[in-house]
Amino acid sequence: MSAKKQEPKIVSTTESQPEGFKWVRLKKIDWEDETGKKRVWEAAERCTRAKSGVDAVAIIALLDHPSKPLSTVILEQYRPPIENTVIELPAGLVDEGETPEEAAVRELIEETGYGGDGEGAGTATVEDISPILVSDPGMTNANMRLCTVRVKLSESDPEPKQKLDEGEHIVKRIVEVKELYNVLQEYDRKGFTIDARLAHWAMGWHMATRSNKE
Amino acid sequence: MSAKKQEPKIVSTTESQPEGFKWVRLKKIDWEDETGKKRVWEAAERCTRAKSGVDAVAIIALLDHPSKPLSTVILEQYRPPIENTVIELPAGLVDEGETPEEAAVRELIEETGYGGDGEGAGTATVEDISPILVSDPGMTNANMRLCTVRVKLSESDPEPKQKLDEGEHIVKRIVEVKELYNVLQEYDRKGFTIDARLAHWAMGWHMATRSNKE
Repeated sequence: MSAKKQEPKIVSTTESQPEGFKWVRLKKIDWEDETGKKRVWEAAERCTRAKSGVDAVAIIALLDHPSKPLSTVILEQYRPPIENTVIELPAGLVDEGETPEEAAVRELIEETGYGGDGEGAGTATVEDISPILVSDPGMTNANMRLCTVRVKLSESDPEPKQKLDEGEHIVKRIVEVKELYNVLQEYDRKGFTIDARLAHWAMGWHMATRSNKE
Repeated sequence: MSAKKQEPKIVSTTESQPEGFKWVRLKKIDWEDETGKKRVWEAAERCTRAKSGVDAVAIIALLDHPSKPLSTVILEQYRPPIENTVIELPAGLVDEGETPEEAAVRELIEETGYGGDGEGAGTATVEDISPILVSDPGMTNANMRLCTVRVKLSESDPEPKQKLDEGEHIVKRIVEVKELYNVLQEYDRKGFTIDARLAHWAMGWHMATRSNKE
């Protein structure tokens, strides 16, 4: 363990946003490390953070059907920064004045139909909301919460319809939770790109299941 | 499901790096969506990607001791972009000429001592390497692979020493895997920030365990 002489601290930050950008900016951070040494770090950040302090929320939907295996919903969505279609959890930015739980249920309804008022939407209950999580803390301050939402379905419920905004092109897929790890591997083989947070959740589930069998 | 008229495509990209920045830059992406509509996306990216195409690797170490419960190693590390100490998996950038597996074992040794040649280092075996995963695909092209490394320990092995680079101040903590979810909650209550990928792995494990008991 390293000898910690002081708490590291930020000395000053300088934002830099080139002409024509409005959603993201860069930031130069002057800070002092644990030994008092002056250092510089470069980061990127979103310009859209709501007063709640949370950029985004992602949703693990647990589809609880009387006679089908526990399932979840994942999305196929084209992401320009990746130049590819990415397999992700339902997610979205938190709007001003919204709680993360409200944003989670709203995004789940929009992107999957579950939890809404249409046929087959079931009844959504927020089961767990994570602390604030940072998605890539060496590079950006981008943060999120993960919300687990249980959706109670009835025997004859049809698959509900998405309520996408104009210009949103998102394909949803229902996957048995115990098959999620394999389904992601298969998406990778087909040339899709996988979101790290979804993959880590699936990997954690997979390892727990495997570990129980050992 | 939305009617997909064409594959979305990138028309052109323009990089923008303000004076004085060298590690990160911004990018304006002109693209055409599924309906042929011209749209613009703003993203950030690292300037350091190795030829392998992978920015970074993170490691789930499975510490396999003859008489102790299955454990893993997590790190406490100050992250200037977050202005706080973040709880993370061992991880690091992939160097030029290195495979992700080599980078994973190298970083595990440096940050935790496990897998090295010191006392108590055990014997490390790469058990699983994920596909390329994207950490925050709406905002950056940053990517990584998750490497699961089993470390076989002997009964009397002491905790191995880290081999940190000059200027690295990283505190490691050994945690029973089945306690990981609770330990992260406790870190949050104490004012630390949690990495999203670590939290998603822990959440997946926690849900699988809970689901088995239902």
